[in-house]
Amino acid sequence: HHHPVTGHRHPLTPRLSPAAERLRYILGEEDDMPTPTLFTEMDTLQQDGDELEWKESARWVKFEEKVEEGGERWSKPHVSTLSLHSLFELRTCIQTGTVLLDLEGYSLPQIVDEIIEQQVDEGMLSPDLREKISFVLLRKHRHQTKKPIHRSLADMGKASGGGARHAQSRSMNDISDTPSTDQLRNKFMKKIPRDAEASNVLVGEVDFLDKPFVAFVRLAQATTLGGLTEVPVPTRFLFILLGPTGKAKSYNQIGRAIATLMVDDLFSDVAYKARDREDLIAGIDEFLDEVIVLPPGEWDPKIRIEPPKKVTSADKRKSVFSLNELGQPNGAAGGGGGLAEDEEIVCVCGRFCGGLFLDIKRKIPWLLSDFYEGFHIQSISAVLFIYLGCITNAITFGGLLGDATDNYQGVMESFLGTALSGTVFCLFSGQPLIILSSTGPILIFEKLLFEFSKNNGIDYMELRLWIGIHSCLQCFLLVATDASYIIKYMTRFTEEGFSSLISFIFISDAIKKMMGSFKYYPINTDFKPDYVTAYKCECLLNITGLDWSQLSKKECVKYGGSLVGNTCKYVPDLALMSFILFFGTYSMTVSLKKFKFSRYFPTKLRKLISDFSIFMAIMTFVGLDRLIGLKTPKLIVPTEFKPTRPDRGWIVLPFGKNPWWVYLASFVPALLVTILIFMDQQISAVIVNRKENKLRKGCGYHLDLFWVGVLMAACSFLGLPWYVAATVISIAHIDSLKMESESSAPGEQPQFLGVREQRLTGILVFVLTGVSIFLAPILQFIPMPVLYGVFLYMGVASLSGIQFWERIKLYMMPSKYQPDFPFLRHVPLRRVHLFTLVQIICLAVLWVLKSTVLAILFPVMVLFMTRPKQSGEKTKLKCTTTHKHRGKNKPAQRAETGVTNKTKPTEKGKGNGGS
Amino acid sequence: HHHPVTGHRHPLTPRLSPAAERLRYILGEEDDMPTPTLFTEMDTLQQDGDELEWKESARWVKFEEKVEEGGERWSKPHVSTLSLHSLFELRTCIQTGTVLLDLEGYSLPQIVDEIIEQQVDEGMLSPDLREKISFVLLRKHRHQTKKPIHRSLADMGKASGGGARHAQSRSMNDISDTPSTDQLRNKFMKKIPRDAEASNVLVGEVDFLDKPFVAFVRLAQATTLGGLTEVPVPTRFLFILLGPTGKAKSYNQIGRAIATLMVDDLFSDVAYKARDREDLIAGIDEFLDEVIVLPPGEWDPKIRIEPPKKVTSADKRKSVFSLNELGQPNGAAGGGGGLAEDEEIVCVCGRFCGGLFLDIKRKIPWLLSDFYEGFHIQSISAVLFIYLGCITNAITFGGLLGDATDNYQGVMESFLGTALSGTVFCLFSGQPLIILSSTGPILIFEKLLFEFSKNNGIDYMELRLWIGIHSCLQCFLLVATDASYIIKYMTRFTEEGFSSLISFIFISDAIKKMMGSFKYYPINTDFKPDYVTAYKCECLLNITGLDWSQLSKKECVKYGGSLVGNTCKYVPDLALMSFILFFGTYSMTVSLKKFKFSRYFPTKLRKLISDFSIFMAIMTFVGLDRLIGLKTPKLIVPTEFKPTRPDRGWIVLPFGKNPWWVYLASFVPALLVTILIFMDQQISAVIVNRKENKLRKGCGYHLDLFWVGVLMAACSFLGLPWYVAATVISIAHIDSLKMESESSAPGEQPQFLGVREQRLTGILVFVLTGVSIFLAPILQFIPMPVLYGVFLYMGVASLSGIQFWERIKLYMMPSKYQPDFPFLRHVPLRRVHLFTLVQIICLAVLWVLKSTVLAILFPVMVLFMTRPKQSGEKTKLKCTTTHKHRGKNKPAQRAETGVTNKTKPTEKGKGNGGS
Repeated sequence: HHHPVTGHRHPLTPRLSPAAERLRYILGEEDDMPTPTLFTEMDTLQQDGDELEWKESARWVKFEEKVEEGGERWSKPHVSTLSLHSLFELRTCIQTGTVLLDLEGYSLPQIVDEIIEQQVDEGMLSPDLREKISFVLLRKHRHQTKKPIHRSLADMGKASGGGARHAQSRSMNDISDTPSTDQLRNKFMKKIPRDAEASNVLVGEVDFLDKPFVAFVRLAQATTLGGLTEVPVPTRFLFILLGPTGKAKSYNQIGRAIATLMVDDLFSDVAYKARDREDLIAGIDEFLDEVIVLPPGEWDPKIRIEPPKKVTSADKRKSVFSLNELGQPNGAAGGGGGLAEDEEIVCVCGRFCGGLFLDIKRKIPWLLSDFYEGFHIQSISAVLFIYLGCITNAITFGGLLGDATDNYQGVMESFLGTALSGTVFCLFSGQPLIILSSTGPILIFEKLLFEFSKNNGIDYMELRLWIGIHSCLQCFLLVATDASYIIKYMTRFTEEGFSSLISFIFISDAIKKMMGSFKYYPINTDFKPDYVTAYKCECLLNITGLDWSQLSKKECVKYGGSLVGNTCKYVPDLALMSFILFFGTYSMTVSLKKFKFSRYFPTKLRKLISDFSIFMAIMTFVGLDRLIGLKTPKLIVPTEFKPTRPDRGWIVLPFGKNPWWVYLASFVPALLVTILIFMDQQISAVIVNRKENKLRKGCGYHLDLFWVGVLMAACSFLGLPWYVAATVISIAHIDSLKMESESSAPGEQPQFLGVREQRLTGILVFVLTGVSIFLAPILQFIPMPVLYGVFLYMGVASLSGIQFWERIKLYMMPSKYQPDFPFLRHVPLRRVHLFTLVQIICLAVLWVLKSTVLAILFPVMVLFMTRPKQSGEKTKLKCTTTHKHRGKNKPAQRAETGVTNKTKPTEKGKGNGGS
Repeated sequence: HHHPVTGHRHPLTPRLSPAAERLRYILGEEDDMPTPTLFTEMDTLQQDGDELEWKESARWVKFEEKVEEGGERWSKPHVSTLSLHSLFELRTCIQTGTVLLDLEGYSLPQIVDEIIEQQVDEGMLSPDLREKISFVLLRKHRHQTKKPIHRSLADMGKASGGGARHAQSRSMNDISDTPSTDQLRNKFMKKIPRDAEASNVLVGEVDFLDKPFVAFVRLAQATTLGGLTEVPVPTRFLFILLGPTGKAKSYNQIGRAIATLMVDDLFSDVAYKARDREDLIAGIDEFLDEVIVLPPGEWDPKIRIEPPKKVTSADKRKSVFSLNELGQPNGAAGGGGGLAEDEEIVCVCGRFCGGLFLDIKRKIPWLLSDFYEGFHIQSISAVLFIYLGCITNAITFGGLLGDATDNYQGVMESFLGTALSGTVFCLFSGQPLIILSSTGPILIFEKLLFEFSKNNGIDYMELRLWIGIHSCLQCFLLVATDASYIIKYMTRFTEEGFSSLISFIFISDAIKKMMGSFKYYPINTDFKPDYVTAYKCECLLNITGLDWSQLSKKECVKYGGSLVGNTCKYVPDLALMSFILFFGTYSMTVSLKKFKFSRYFPTKLRKLISDFSIFMAIMTFVGLDRLIGLKTPKLIVPTEFKPTRPDRGWIVLPFGKNPWWVYLASFVPALLVTILIFMDQQISAVIVNRKENKLRKGCGYHLDLFWVGVLMAACSFLGLPWYVAATVISIAHIDSLKMESESSAPGEQPQFLGVREQRLTGILVFVLTGVSIFLAPILQFIPMPVLYGVFLYMGVASLSGIQFWERIKLYMMPSKYQPDFPFLRHVPLRRVHLFTLVQIICLAVLWVLKSTVLAILFPVMVLFMTRPKQSGEKTKLKCTTTHKHRGKNKPAQRAETGVTNKTKPTEKGKGNGGS
């Protein structure tokens, strides 16, 4: 029993059926001209009062959109679910009907005449039906078009009574060649690719036929056939099915089947290149062979299936028929090649500064685009967000540094240093997406150094300058020897551990600072509203002559008075208000970020709201704070341009204050600083350069380190703090610059395209930080708790991108509810859990050590996690420059890598929705 | 070209193919024995070291679960996506392979022998392969079973090194007839219906065959074949496919195809009843004919499709082959009938008290179950939730009534009345899910009445008693004449309008009360922490002899003192703390309710958390309040059992204080009260009895009204407030008692089954309200803002079930993002918007009127919205008793009704997830 469709007699017969042979012949030709995209419109014949007319009932760009019968609206784009039956019926139609390929058609009447003549000639149609068929086929076409809101509102009143047919546009004249205004005005045109051609499907039942009238026409030239199509796209294909009454539903299904076939990438190729009827049938058979079947008992055909996130490319299916890849029919073609194109971080250890020159060479071509690509509305929100993060950081660290160094470096120095280092780094570095900032280990180092100098009578600033100089030179040495090459050995384990830890520190700091306000503004929990008369706080002074009742708390203490009373140590409302501002800012930001995925408002507005969520949250809670008017702690930036400590100038001189051997001995502490900076900088850079971020412009580890070294020396001369890459803020920077594709065909999911890689946002952030001194009148309205809320958000958001965090969450999920992560398909759950557990323990140990003085060794400890156990597991850290075309089936390949290969980034189940 | 699968030559040929004819013959027989459910397991042949063994690779109860190759775990249940190819190959296999129907099999070796003999006899297998095939088929079977967590943890250590094969159980002996312990211990057994039988699919590649060895076996008796199956379910069917090496993937697909077929309701019937090979092939052909096809370019076969919410019943597909329904092949059978079974609210106007007697008759059979069905853990949460709602209401309204009536009715009376009325109503009413409560209109009436009495020197309590008596009699009259019949004319418009309005009032009241605390506890926004010494409040008194510094604010005012100072009118912290408690309770409740849909923790725990969300939120914030220790306003219930006003007793005497004509004249205000009560009561009852709630025990409008009347009189005699059904609390009551089916087959969605209809929760709520006087020591810990948070939640939750609210949300959604509501498919969007707009305007007008004295006419105004415009649109308000079997395709029918038929409840897109 030989099967006509699949050509298989038995599972044993070879794969290539006769149909496939045919397709290989027509598709295998080496012509580079890709066929145009097809837009398909299906019109059905309807009785409108006395008149017959063609009414648009569905359309396809890639997915199906249906006209809802009662709703007079387009359905959501959905996957076309066909019945197998209709596909077989379609096959029969093509087998028995008229097939006209490369017909010279210039107008619909002429084409219709040609078809009818053909059928009459072949004896399939009795000549007396000629007029009737022609009459039916040349009826007017009515399209379902979306109206502007004012017009449809105007229709509301009229429509409530009778039918609402006037809401649709109607092409009055099929014979005109110029597109009608309705066609031209149609906004749907935007969704159709520029080079698209149309295929029109016309199905209907008529009472004068006793067997179906079927025609498949391909025009030699795509031609605009008047108002046939909803949009002014020239028609290339025409499928007509007229049949006897009573089977309208069946005709409809056949129409949907051919329409779905026409938008199938492979079949549309076949349709363009078919030489005869048999080629088309081979195309249908091949389609049938690839089709996915859902059992009727497990799926309800009425459910509309939402378009999937990703569809396998048609190239893979086509490659089977490509002649030059005959040997590999299982789709292996096209893979593998992509990987080799990635530029890895190369060890050119033989050459001096080889890595640095490569980095510069890689960066030069992007120089111009690094600036003009920054002009986008998203940049504004990114700048505001990162700016607020940076100044909060500058103020916090500035305050801490001031305490630690007796104001040798204070808030003013912190601002200036941040501005200077950041601007220079963003201008010249290899990876301008990295944001420099003060970090914890440096702070602890400075503290220890200051204490050491004070106790040993050594001048702190001069010592620090020499350490900076040594460290700078050591950095140059690391650059010259391409030492950054060792980050190649960094595993997912290290990378994730580091960024998780930094995120946790961020979160815990934000909460700690918040909780601090409960300490600074203690609440009087014993307060009884009725006994308000019993609460007071008085200043008792022994000296007279002063009106001591007017003294403030501080003045009272200053004059040696004592505060007596039951309210002295309490501050009402401020702690709770701070909490409301903190938590409100955080949760409003989170909600607004999520708003992108809601159903309300148009996509663009939603995206805007999501992009500016932090700004809007800050504005709202600044407003609320102003409205209530409580004296919450505000952001205070220095307003005068002078060193915090009056006895120091802006330049630190290298000689004169310390004995000569100090200049040499400072080599040793400089070594510690160098390791510290190297590790902090490069691990953050690895995280920023992650493959998941799809960076096009490549990395520049050596160049980055070079500039960090230069800035070390510069800051030391100016007596400013030292700066190094800040993981969490850099991640936030990248997150706020993510690009998504505008969905092209209706229903297609937007894809994560990459990051707006440019230097503009970074530069602006740091220039703004520099001029913040002049922005004080504005900035003073921002309450600190609001900024802590922003910090909390930054920490939480940077956690959400980490696989480690996803794996921790798995602990709490019963296995049947766990998301379908690729690594769970390939690695047993208990190994995943074990791996996570080890990571948690490592982090816990680091967390404990972090709270001790050992914290300055922190980056070095991270280094200990870096050595891979097996050489086979080492990372290939790539500076991806993805501007070249990549193999199509690479994502699938990547998805296969799970936890075992710890270093390759794993595709995340939920896609690229920004966090 | 005649097609072998579908039997169609052309769209025109009649529907019944030869395959269908065959099926009609075997399925059309009128035997009532349903075939058992089939559990299908697919094992594939694997090389394990030197040994061959059968390894379980997938299983089907209804949907497919696959063993993840690396993950050693079951995938999530998903819809089986097959390739059309594999189905055709399977068809060929059945055509060419051995088919043994009703084989007498008692053990696997014997069955295997029989198959081999058959093949050798038919010359399909060379006799020398006999041994080899038998050897392969009798290899051990290894199943993928879930291990208890302690065992798999123990395995963790061992497994990290080598392979992890020990995590799976292995049946050591295929020949034993008794189920192994692993089989018996398997928890998966719970998911398989009790009467189920197994079908085993064995596929694999071997090196000694050069053409496939295929067998399909149906045993005469279902037999447990040792360790063949994962669970101790007797095997009925066996499908074996062994083939030459190199095509393992293809064999696998064929195995999946037959397995999917075996769990298909229709095909499994065919398999049980098939007389020969051709019947099976007819079954496959029929399956192919019903199959749903996804185009390869629009769907990625790797995506696992989640089981749909609802699958069309197989009965509809089967009915085509049923002989006695020959005339209606399009599945119209079975519909319509269900509707007639519903007991509508019947007008038996001719008979005195006809409706009342019908109600009683309907309720009597449920008397016992009304109590024992209350014993469920869910009831506890419902009781706690509603109890808190009730006492908050009692206190609020008690306070307001006390103000309005000069304490003739105060908090004490409110508690007592709530307890008395509620208990009696829940014990005897027709719809015990309704919760009685004080309502706004009654409050306004009492206020007006008290003012009238005072101004005219009429005794308020006596007048009120007579109004109560008249009103009670009027209610009886309404009951006797079956006046409740008019609610039949209530449309969705009215019903939704009323419940939305009540919800809005609830929400606005909750927020107003919350905002009130900012008024009661004003915040001193001028407070400067440093000038704490400048803030005080002193009591200035002219009289001496008193230590006035010790006086409280109240005492100071009492003694005629004046409060001087800048803190006198401020109360610190309390307002903000109240806000935190209010908002915290609300948002925690909402989050915990949503937790049911998260992935964490097992379903049961999640359901528990969701059920007790309100309780947990209250506990958390009561705890927080205690922890901080501020004097937030607390819930204070009366502790002594005596009337609020000392000059009144517990019984109001009917005569003596007012002139005789007052007794008669009170008929007129009683009429207003009656209308008010009638409308309030019956509209709430309609909302409770909504079809969406799937109530089984029917309604009792007449009986409800009867008891409301009785309680009116009783409360009047005792001088307690009057009570009537409270919409929002009743909805909350129902929501907290919703039942969902435990999902049976893996992947099947739990269905909303109905509500725990019983009297126990209601009775408990009101008994608890009554004894609250003794619970004061516990209740005094609950801050009022927490309870306002609960109120806010109640209001918001009751809104979320209303279609009106869904339609309002549509205004803000671009039409392409709108959810796929059934009414949007059938009604043009602008008509939906128009309808919603009219509703909004009506509500806005009512809202404005509500704020005036006209509020007592509120229910009457609602009545004006009640008259339907066209007689065709009038509601069929049914007292559904759904214990009878209903037609299967009714839900689909219902889904067709949209807004146009305003009264029929519309299936909601998102299913029955409790809000």
